[in-house]
Amino acid sequence: MRILLSNDDGYFAPGIEHLARALGDLGEITVVAPERDRSGASNSLTLDRPLSLRRTPNGFYHVNGTPTDCVHLAVTGMLDTLPDMVVSGINHGANMGDDTIYSGTVAAATEGYLLGVPALAVSLVGKSGQHFATAAQIARQLVARFLAQPIREPVLLNVNVPDVPLSDIRGIKVTRLGRRHKAEPVVKAQTPRGETVYWVGAAGEAADAGEGTDFHAVANNFVSVTPLQIDLTHAGQLAMIEGWMT
Amino acid sequence: MRILLSNDDGYFAPGIEHLARALGDLGEITVVAPERDRSGASNSLTLDRPLSLRRTPNGFYHVNGTPTDCVHLAVTGMLDTLPDMVVSGINHGANMGDDTIYSGTVAAATEGYLLGVPALAVSLVGKSGQHFATAAQIARQLVARFLAQPIREPVLLNVNVPDVPLSDIRGIKVTRLGRRHKAEPVVKAQTPRGETVYWVGAAGEAADAGEGTDFHAVANNFVSVTPLQIDLTHAGQLAMIEGWMT
Amino acid sequence: MRILLSNDDGYFAPGIEHLARALGDLGEITVVAPERDRSGASNSLTLDRPLSLRRTPNGFYHVNGTPTDCVHLAVTGMLDTLPDMVVSGINHGANMGDDTIYSGTVAAATEGYLLGVPALAVSLVGKSGQHFATAAQIARQLVARFLAQPIREPVLLNVNVPDVPLSDIRGIKVTRLGRRHKAEPVVKAQTPRGETVYWVGAAGEAADAGEGTDFHAVANNFVSVTPLQIDLTHAGQLAMIEGWMT
Amino acid sequence: MRILLSNDDGYFAPGIEHLARALGDLGEITVVAPERDRSGASNSLTLDRPLSLRRTPNGFYHVNGTPTDCVHLAVTGMLDTLPDMVVSGINHGANMGDDTIYSGTVAAATEGYLLGVPALAVSLVGKSGQHFATAAQIARQLVARFLAQPIREPVLLNVNVPDVPLSDIRGIKVTRLGRRHKAEPVVKAQTPRGETVYWVGAAGEAADAGEGTDFHAVANNFVSVTPLQIDLTHAGQLAMIEGWMT
Repeated sequence: MRILLSNDDGYFAPGIEHLARALGDLGEITVVAPERDRSGASNSLTLDRPLSLRRTPNGFYHVNGTPTDCVHLAVTGMLDTLPDMVVSGINHGANMGDDTIYSGTVAAATEGYLLGVPALAVSLVGKSGQHFATAAQIARQLVARFLAQPIREPVLLNVNVPDVPLSDIRGIKVTRLGRRHKAEPVVKAQTPRGETVYWVGAAGEAADAGEGTDFHAVANNFVSVTPLQIDLTHAGQLAMIEGWMT
Repeated sequence: MRILLSNDDGYFAPGIEHLARALGDLGEITVVAPERDRSGASNSLTLDRPLSLRRTPNGFYHVNGTPTDCVHLAVTGMLDTLPDMVVSGINHGANMGDDTIYSGTVAAATEGYLLGVPALAVSLVGKSGQHFATAAQIARQLVARFLAQPIREPVLLNVNVPDVPLSDIRGIKVTRLGRRHKAEPVVKAQTPRGETVYWVGAAGEAADAGEGTDFHAVANNFVSVTPLQIDLTHAGQLAMIEGWMT
Repeated sequence: MRILLSNDDGYFAPGIEHLARALGDLGEITVVAPERDRSGASNSLTLDRPLSLRRTPNGFYHVNGTPTDCVHLAVTGMLDTLPDMVVSGINHGANMGDDTIYSGTVAAATEGYLLGVPALAVSLVGKSGQHFATAAQIARQLVARFLAQPIREPVLLNVNVPDVPLSDIRGIKVTRLGRRHKAEPVVKAQTPRGETVYWVGAAGEAADAGEGTDFHAVANNFVSVTPLQIDLTHAGQLAMIEGWMT
Repeated sequence: MRILLSNDDGYFAPGIEHLARALGDLGEITVVAPERDRSGASNSLTLDRPLSLRRTPNGFYHVNGTPTDCVHLAVTGMLDTLPDMVVSGINHGANMGDDTIYSGTVAAATEGYLLGVPALAVSLVGKSGQHFATAAQIARQLVARFLAQPIREPVLLNVNVPDVPLSDIRGIKVTRLGRRHKAEPVVKAQTPRGETVYWVGAAGEAADAGEGTDFHAVANNFVSVTPLQIDLTHAGQLAMIEGWMT
């Protein structure tokens, strides 16, 4: 089994090292990740300049581009054959609810999925990032299960793991994405040169965090696994918009 | 009516000027767009540095960030009240099918939608970009209709307009997103300093371009209007994944 | 006479528009400037990606690169013949003393000089930037004089103009660069996500601002003109270092 | 003795690791280097966004900025006391002649010098980069000598080392900077989307590479040591320009 790893925190991040170690004996691992932190990159693709690929002494590759660029370049230009799986992460921080559309971690997995490879995005929910080992073990279980029992249709799984010891994890729940309230407003600041600048503010609080959501699962010390798809069509509005147009 | 305009081609692009002119008498227009071309930016959000907002002599604002940043900053930090509508575009080039997830044009509209504002993304399908006036007139019709007859639920419309004279447009169709084949492989090149670099290749050919899709409508000289949503949950796989997990 | 204009504030900056207007009847003007503000760019040259050149409706060109890139690309790849002069500016803010080495404005002129073209860098000293017209008139005088009475050796002139009405300018002084005290320390700040970041602080106060320096001239409402060269060899230390080495 | 190391190739580059190892027992080493390759950055200083400082597992720090930013942040915001020396490098590639003004390696050392710290820039001349160990040994000799026999005036030394085994080095020469011919023209290329882009071309051939220059020393398997200063005033032209102005 050949597994392609990527992330959005950068090739040097502890999360991807944990992942590479945990998956190391399940197959042949190739790491292709951004050269720097690209959190918030979403599915951004670099079109206005070419990408460079460099190898570090420990065998990881890094690209001067986005998470999507990394997987795109690895799959369409670097690897001889399609990998059997793309695993992205372990992200330091949650990727749940509607925030998922901003996530570079999920985007790297999405690019694998779009290129025909089963894909997993793994995030550790929590600021302190103390239990990467927990998330690495969960990722390992899921990949091992996939190896033993492949899913026959295209699959993109978004996995969020509570930042607790493995022994405190109560199980894995299949969930839907929750919803957040609107983001906090931008935060004004002054530069030392007297100019006003604006920081993007914090994400909103969970709005739909009811049972069945990723928020609910993680808040109760379950791992959430949300199957994703990328067809943004709002099928439920097709008829209404048709009516409105005429 | 207050309308916020943005795009991903940059504040100086002809598309947004056409849009500003065409919508000018329907309401109060504010333009907040990226300072440079950010095509392919997707929903990328800038978290590692603050944003600057500058005003040009013609009254447009530009931001040193992504399309998402522009709408986010305008709505949560600059405008006194929520705008009545966000319109993004007119993009020079199509935003149809699964490519939509890479689009900065659609992302700017999506950010409006996430912040509670009805939103429209408008793209001109074609490389030569000869008929921005057509797309501007279509955008005007849709905004005017919205003004006369507001839609009561949250709405995010992705509009693609054939690059032909207005008189050649055969009508407007409500569509679903089509699908493309996989993207072309990356293209290798050499720098003058002898290093190998890789350009992201072209998008794939349409794979699902059957009746009902945006591809099909535009290919037949119809405008496509696709209602979008942003819940990526693959509801149809929830049960299957549940079974697989146990 | 063909004059190439550039700057570091971006092609849309008022300073370069003033310059283009003021020099318009002295020769054929080509403007090639950065697509965005690149203040502080120094002689930075872009080696890891190619540059794009775009034309605005008003005929200016912009490049997704540094001031040095702009002049380099214009002279070695775009213009049919060597321009007769490179003029950079009008910068919004001083470029005096040892700060000159950080300046993108001076760097654009330096690139012209290195490529064999007489070059002028023009800066308006003052935060409010009220009297670009003064600096534009001074630039015009200097270019007109150069036209009437060319200098036979390679020349790179760094011009700083007080931000006062033209009638308040007391004359032009040929000066040497002054010296500043060390820069202020970096300024710590917190992001909304709780991370510590550091802003580069303000430039130091003038340390050598005695008679004969650019600081002294400008403080007394004179224009300073400092001829520059780019050989950084410390000739005065050659013998001392030789002694130290043996 | 406390020594601050930086470079422009990035904190992960082999050159800076060689340097850190070679100087390790001469004093307390702190490494603060760019998070990614910033070759060609010159003295560029980041003014439009704040800088982040991160620590790697091996104790190196990296900054999302330029070489100049790194030294500026380390000296004015991170280290408790002024370091005794700034050493920049080992650059992979020459920094000789007028190219020196584009160099990020020399810029990092220059920033130390401007902040009152004796500074050394070390470059390995050659594309293949086989003998970093040679350059590291030379750097060690110079730093050890400085430690034993400090230079009492401010000093900024630009050191270029031939890419040969240490036993092939014929000695150290104190040199002046040579001159190059003009750079090669930009190189046109096409993107996969049909747009024309331009790569900055190669540096020019040596024009003044006579005896006494850095070019001449290195071509003859000597190490070149050039003392630099940063006053760009062209003292020799002051009178001529004065005459021309009146």
